[in-house]
Amino acid sequence: MTENREHHYTENVQDHLLKVQHLLEKQALLETVTHRQTLPRDERHELLDKMLHKRHLVELRERLDGLHSADIAYILEALPIEQRLMLWDLVKADRDGDILIEVSDAVRESLIASMSREELREATENLDTDEIADLAPDLPQNVMRDVFKSLSIEEREQLRAAMSYSEDSVGALMDFNMVHVREDVTLEVVSRYLRRFDALPDHTDQVFVVDRDDRFKGVLPINLIVVNEPEMEVGKLMLTDTIRLNPDDKADQAAQSFERYDLVSAPVVDEDGKLVGRVTVNVVLDFIRDEAETDLLNQAGLREEEDIFASVWKSAQNRWTWLALNLATAFFASRVIGSFEDTIEKFVALATLMPIVAGIAGNSANQTTTIIIRSLALGQITQGNARRLMIKELAISGLNGLVWGGIAGLFAYFLYHNVALGVVMTSAMVLNLIVGAMVGLFIPLAMHKLGRDPAIGSSVMITAITDSGGFFIFLGLAAIFLIN
Amino acid sequence: MTENREHHYTENVQDHLLKVQHLLEKQALLETVTHRQTLPRDERHELLDKMLHKRHLVELRERLDGLHSADIAYILEALPIEQRLMLWDLVKADRDGDILIEVSDAVRESLIASMSREELREATENLDTDEIADLAPDLPQNVMRDVFKSLSIEEREQLRAAMSYSEDSVGALMDFNMVHVREDVTLEVVSRYLRRFDALPDHTDQVFVVDRDDRFKGVLPINLIVVNEPEMEVGKLMLTDTIRLNPDDKADQAAQSFERYDLVSAPVVDEDGKLVGRVTVNVVLDFIRDEAETDLLNQAGLREEEDIFASVWKSAQNRWTWLALNLATAFFASRVIGSFEDTIEKFVALATLMPIVAGIAGNSANQTTTIIIRSLALGQITQGNARRLMIKELAISGLNGLVWGGIAGLFAYFLYHNVALGVVMTSAMVLNLIVGAMVGLFIPLAMHKLGRDPAIGSSVMITAITDSGGFFIFLGLAAIFLIN
Repeated sequence: MTENREHHYTENVQDHLLKVQHLLEKQALLETVTHRQTLPRDERHELLDKMLHKRHLVELRERLDGLHSADIAYILEALPIEQRLMLWDLVKADRDGDILIEVSDAVRESLIASMSREELREATENLDTDEIADLAPDLPQNVMRDVFKSLSIEEREQLRAAMSYSEDSVGALMDFNMVHVREDVTLEVVSRYLRRFDALPDHTDQVFVVDRDDRFKGVLPINLIVVNEPEMEVGKLMLTDTIRLNPDDKADQAAQSFERYDLVSAPVVDEDGKLVGRVTVNVVLDFIRDEAETDLLNQAGLREEEDIFASVWKSAQNRWTWLALNLATAFFASRVIGSFEDTIEKFVALATLMPIVAGIAGNSANQTTTIIIRSLALGQITQGNARRLMIKELAISGLNGLVWGGIAGLFAYFLYHNVALGVVMTSAMVLNLIVGAMVGLFIPLAMHKLGRDPAIGSSVMITAITDSGGFFIFLGLAAIFLIN
Repeated sequence: MTENREHHYTENVQDHLLKVQHLLEKQALLETVTHRQTLPRDERHELLDKMLHKRHLVELRERLDGLHSADIAYILEALPIEQRLMLWDLVKADRDGDILIEVSDAVRESLIASMSREELREATENLDTDEIADLAPDLPQNVMRDVFKSLSIEEREQLRAAMSYSEDSVGALMDFNMVHVREDVTLEVVSRYLRRFDALPDHTDQVFVVDRDDRFKGVLPINLIVVNEPEMEVGKLMLTDTIRLNPDDKADQAAQSFERYDLVSAPVVDEDGKLVGRVTVNVVLDFIRDEAETDLLNQAGLREEEDIFASVWKSAQNRWTWLALNLATAFFASRVIGSFEDTIEKFVALATLMPIVAGIAGNSANQTTTIIIRSLALGQITQGNARRLMIKELAISGLNGLVWGGIAGLFAYFLYHNVALGVVMTSAMVLNLIVGAMVGLFIPLAMHKLGRDPAIGSSVMITAITDSGGFFIFLGLAAIFLIN
């Protein structure tokens, strides 16, 4: 889709949200009133109501027409479900597709559920094939069949290609809006060719140079067209030493290239050297933001993005896997404590102190894991430095164990006037912090080796071990050295 | 800085890292050997050594010359400190500035510490004023004085302006590499003007239209220059309805505009309507990535980005505030348990079960906070929907309390064959999950109201309350209903 230049950019979309919400509320109120008065109502009243109705609707529609699709998407996301669907009805049909692309997955689902087969097919009419591929997983099968039928053969092939790539590959980020030129023409010819476009595709900072068989030869930045004399030949100016992405590359790698080399667009070239598409920086920006959000959500054990107005039931399910896992590890930790019931019975102070041993080691281990996961993501951990890092983390946890364990030991001593208890406390903290550092290192490294994302699930495992381990070490030491 | 087109892009920078590390190790070995043989060594030996030395150094230097500054920055970050400084010595002086801009703060410190006053001044010579402003906080005062002296009056003013904006404002993201044109000229004239540049500044997707007093009138996308006839006038083609950033806007807001409207560059306009600079998408990309990383680090209580090869002492300090805070809250929770010592002594099963009550509520509360923080960041929480959200979160926690509390209650019952214990367990879980939801909602909302970042520190407070609260509720209920 080329940008909607006719729609306004807005400095403060929140103001629009508040105004829209206000209008929707008035509208809803009117509808209730109208509805109640349905039976005993004279003609004048009816007319007045209709006029009022109309005024609000006209105002809402005008406001929507002036807004950028991305802003409408934002407003839809911030509205409760009934108001959201009311507003969705007011959006002009030819913008449905654009807006569906912009909204979050959870909200998209709620919008699509409210649309008919015909409306959905129409919504895809203004979309590019790579955008249809993004929507495809959420569209009903029969709609997808309709869409396929309405496409040209070339577009069908593009759509099939776009849908065939896995979600985290370059292929999934790619679009097909490329401008290509030959290397044996002059800038003059290129300029004449470009003037045949009404507008260049968004983010066209360079055109791609290909040969007769669509094989990629290089890129010609638009800026070079602008600063050079018209009689220059493309082949002389084009840059050949540029990033080429492969459709099967990890999307994450492509994002790193964009960050590192400050790219605006990059060609996607397949194994045979053919130019198949391009990736643009706006898609990369969205990808990076999504990844960051997913990381934060995963850390709290939220499986997916939540529509803040989804039903209680749906939201609860999103959170269950995590809580169930944590409950299971808590049961295990509880049984570890259970095996020391005799010890605790004899010396109940242990019960008051044991959560300290478990908790601090858990925090420290999670710090280690965060550092490791980050270094893994940046590709900074090599075989050469892994051992070094390990020694460093163990040293830090030992040091922290002595410092904070020492303080905790003093705390225990002053409370219960028992030197042995203080020593047991400090020793348990040191040991458990070291255990924490080891699992905090080992778990993400192992997950990375196995090709899994170390950011998902590491923290449950680590906390499970530092909890149960902490209880076991502390109560075990106490059973040996304190209870005679 | 215009891009270093002469340096190669690389598909796999990790290979370069491994190779460089290998060469550095060989080099270090040689140096040790040479050093040992310093005294009893004949001429031939010396010559041989020098040749070997040279071969490695030449190979390293060649490799570095072919790499993009961003890739050298990456390699420097992934090398232990001695190797890092060895490699840094080999980097050509005229690239020092570029690379210092690219490396992370922690690594930058270590590089700057190894450079002389003169070297540092030279490093800034190839940098733009906005880049010097980025380095400024890390440069010694006397170097900054030297730098100031070497700048033109216009540049001094730019540098002063760039340094005056707070770190999270648009002013801090801004650069001064703008191309401006007047509205009353034709594209022909613009093209001729542009051809006088060797290359346009990076990310020039549009030139800015200003009047005689530098007042911002609109933008002219390069693509429009390319697709329109040369005799068109700028004023007829320029877009006036575009985003204008203000140097004092929050950087975060600007980033959201870039994401929402898929921008490549945006003008920065001051209160008087004067064009003062521009923001480009590559800077926004870095900003978003940095923010996301800071969020992840803060969640684990790491105050700042850690150089993975920093000393144990320095790394430990980075982690201390967090551990100290957690230790303090753990002490408090421990005293809550301590006040129920009699109860636990009579019924030691309570000690085994209490961590379950505290832990699950902590997890659930952190899920609530994550959702709230995210919605706050997206600006989705308005006065109109805050109450609604609150009710929803309370309902979810109540439901979760019944489900998981019910399971935990059964667990307790089957272990200890005590119906009352099961009921106390379930009730405590329900209550503590609701407490968790309330603090999980209230704390981030309150911090947001007070203008503080709710992502920092929320989780310590929440865990403190669900821990102490869980122990208090569970042991309190037990003391009332179980112990006669």
